[in-house]
Amino acid sequence: MNRWLLPEDIADVLPSEARKVEALRRAILDLYRSYGYELVSPPILEFLDSLLTGTGSDLNLQTFKLVDQLSGRTLGLRADITPQVARIDAHLLNRSGVTRLCYAGTVAHARTPVGRSAREELLLGAEIYGCAGWEADFEAITLLLKSIRLTGLSKIYLDLSHAGVLAGILEEVSISESNVEILYGLLQTKDLSGLAQWTSFLPESIAKALQVLMDLNGPPGKVIENAKRLLPKNKTIEQSIADLERLVIASGGLGEGLEISLDLADLRGFQYHSGVMFSAYVDNLPQPIARGGRYDHVGQAFGRSRPATGFSFDLLTLAGLSLPSQPETAIFAPWVDDADLQTTIDGLRSKGRVVIQLMPQDLEYLSEYQCTHQLTKNGNSWEVILLK
Amino acid sequence: MNRWLLPEDIADVLPSEARKVEALRRAILDLYRSYGYELVSPPILEFLDSLLTGTGSDLNLQTFKLVDQLSGRTLGLRADITPQVARIDAHLLNRSGVTRLCYAGTVAHARTPVGRSAREELLLGAEIYGCAGWEADFEAITLLLKSIRLTGLSKIYLDLSHAGVLAGILEEVSISESNVEILYGLLQTKDLSGLAQWTSFLPESIAKALQVLMDLNGPPGKVIENAKRLLPKNKTIEQSIADLERLVIASGGLGEGLEISLDLADLRGFQYHSGVMFSAYVDNLPQPIARGGRYDHVGQAFGRSRPATGFSFDLLTLAGLSLPSQPETAIFAPWVDDADLQTTIDGLRSKGRVVIQLMPQDLEYLSEYQCTHQLTKNGNSWEVILLK
Repeated sequence: MNRWLLPEDIADVLPSEARKVEALRRAILDLYRSYGYELVSPPILEFLDSLLTGTGSDLNLQTFKLVDQLSGRTLGLRADITPQVARIDAHLLNRSGVTRLCYAGTVAHARTPVGRSAREELLLGAEIYGCAGWEADFEAITLLLKSIRLTGLSKIYLDLSHAGVLAGILEEVSISESNVEILYGLLQTKDLSGLAQWTSFLPESIAKALQVLMDLNGPPGKVIENAKRLLPKNKTIEQSIADLERLVIASGGLGEGLEISLDLADLRGFQYHSGVMFSAYVDNLPQPIARGGRYDHVGQAFGRSRPATGFSFDLLTLAGLSLPSQPETAIFAPWVDDADLQTTIDGLRSKGRVVIQLMPQDLEYLSEYQCTHQLTKNGNSWEVILLK
Repeated sequence: MNRWLLPEDIADVLPSEARKVEALRRAILDLYRSYGYELVSPPILEFLDSLLTGTGSDLNLQTFKLVDQLSGRTLGLRADITPQVARIDAHLLNRSGVTRLCYAGTVAHARTPVGRSAREELLLGAEIYGCAGWEADFEAITLLLKSIRLTGLSKIYLDLSHAGVLAGILEEVSISESNVEILYGLLQTKDLSGLAQWTSFLPESIAKALQVLMDLNGPPGKVIENAKRLLPKNKTIEQSIADLERLVIASGGLGEGLEISLDLADLRGFQYHSGVMFSAYVDNLPQPIARGGRYDHVGQAFGRSRPATGFSFDLLTLAGLSLPSQPETAIFAPWVDDADLQTTIDGLRSKGRVVIQLMPQDLEYLSEYQCTHQLTKNGNSWEVILLK
């Protein structure tokens, strides 16, 4: 991608890449359609308040602000689509049963997200509302894996975690939000001595549980066994481990090349999420290619808190990881005033062939289409002949 | 469209509409592909200077401005895509032959455009660079008409004009830009007395030619005949009339339901355009559904002025005019742990069928899919049976 004259970390998508992105976009949306997901398309601009509902301060820093001349109010250029889809589920559709929605749209980031090199993304995602069971999380994970596999990538690493484990450990103590944020950092960086200091004011059983949590990562079987054995027993924690266990078992049937691991101390997005959280990784990309999880309270700000789970990913990044597509072949046709020629061309085009009519002045034609054939008059009819 | 909580003239696209938009988007992009157009996807944000090159002050007023935290410079949220595609042709592709490009992307308007009710559009368009002949204009008009017909609309009104006629009339006098803008207004509103006053300082031959121009509208045959007879004779004017005549003759072959008229005094976008200009109208929509024309100098600001022609339209408006699509049918399947069931579901989905697996808690399923069938176990196998 060439950045000439463009702002930092903003780029054009040029023809060969755009074709790959478009093909993948269609294949993925068709996949979601085959599962009964309904496509929605919220606007790129909204009142800032609506865009930031229930999302935490990270999204605020990421969101471009502008002034609406018509209302004088502050608008946001969306950096995420999930809160918009939650608004649609809560207010516009307002159904009582399970609702499956998907979307594909542009988002922009005021600052380049850590570990990435683009401030614009083509965000694709799917969400299920109204189902609190692990089955909805499993359907989300299934769709996420199938989306990645449509690129031809087969080796996928799925990291699972659960917001309920930490919530269960801290259930009986009251800790301020800023203090909890410090705790995430300590768990994330596996800072054992920092953790010891942070927990010094807490009951010893909780301090010990947090120490155990820090080590609960690795292959699913071992982690679940240790979690059951070493973590304190209460309903929230037991339910969380049971959810993870069911997901791990069900995901065993999701095909070869899938490597699942658990990291119960990986709590990025903990404030936003309320249950299972997952990230998918592929080779040669340090950051997750896709992320998702359960965030049951997402519709609350819109007056309707109901179960919700889903995932999203940047289609431009995903398409960039897929193999270069074969160049498409095209047929050259001359520009002559001949009704038979036009009929022949129309027929070929309606069958999906690319026919490029050469403009009279066009001597040096060059494009991403590989012109392998030519329409040539043979007696009374036009024929497609192979170019040498 | 529900505007709850959304800024004025900004709306969500909900499932049944989104499906129609998506189907039309694919059909139109496939059409352009069959003509050899290459898809490009410029970013929604650019430096304001780049976005506004060669476009006149209208676009400036229409463009949302925001501050880039990374550079401190002013960015624009694009209100048009044509200047971006011109930049891509000039700088990124930089080919010497004819280049055909197309695009589909979101644009936003700071103020609601006159006669419309939406500030966000899904702009689709196609451009041909490097061909100065009428053939390129004809290919653009052909694609535009075929795009509209993909909605099922057959009655289309095509208005043609030509920036060269007025340019030819004013060729030998020097008139300031602001004065020319007043002239457009007078011609547009057919203000004969205002025109008489405006032309009082000009040679009588020019004043008379402008009066003639004001009346040159109606059926192509008559207008072209009058233009040849009554307008002054110089190379620019003669070439312009000849271009229009060739286009009118060629467009005769573009199928039934097309009504062509000329209005040589219709010079909206005159400063931007340099040759043929066209607008397409359909019944029940007062403003044009699509506009286009030649703007040969568009790449100049990017250091490469070469012939260019093309068109664009808002896909959301176009989809809104098309007939409601039939609801898609779907098959219900239960959520049971059964490998045979999963294989049956996967098979149906891969054949393009929509299979909705009912979550265990889901009692009241409702969506835009019409669930007409159900997967039911019959002995050892799962069968699709019709729901009553």
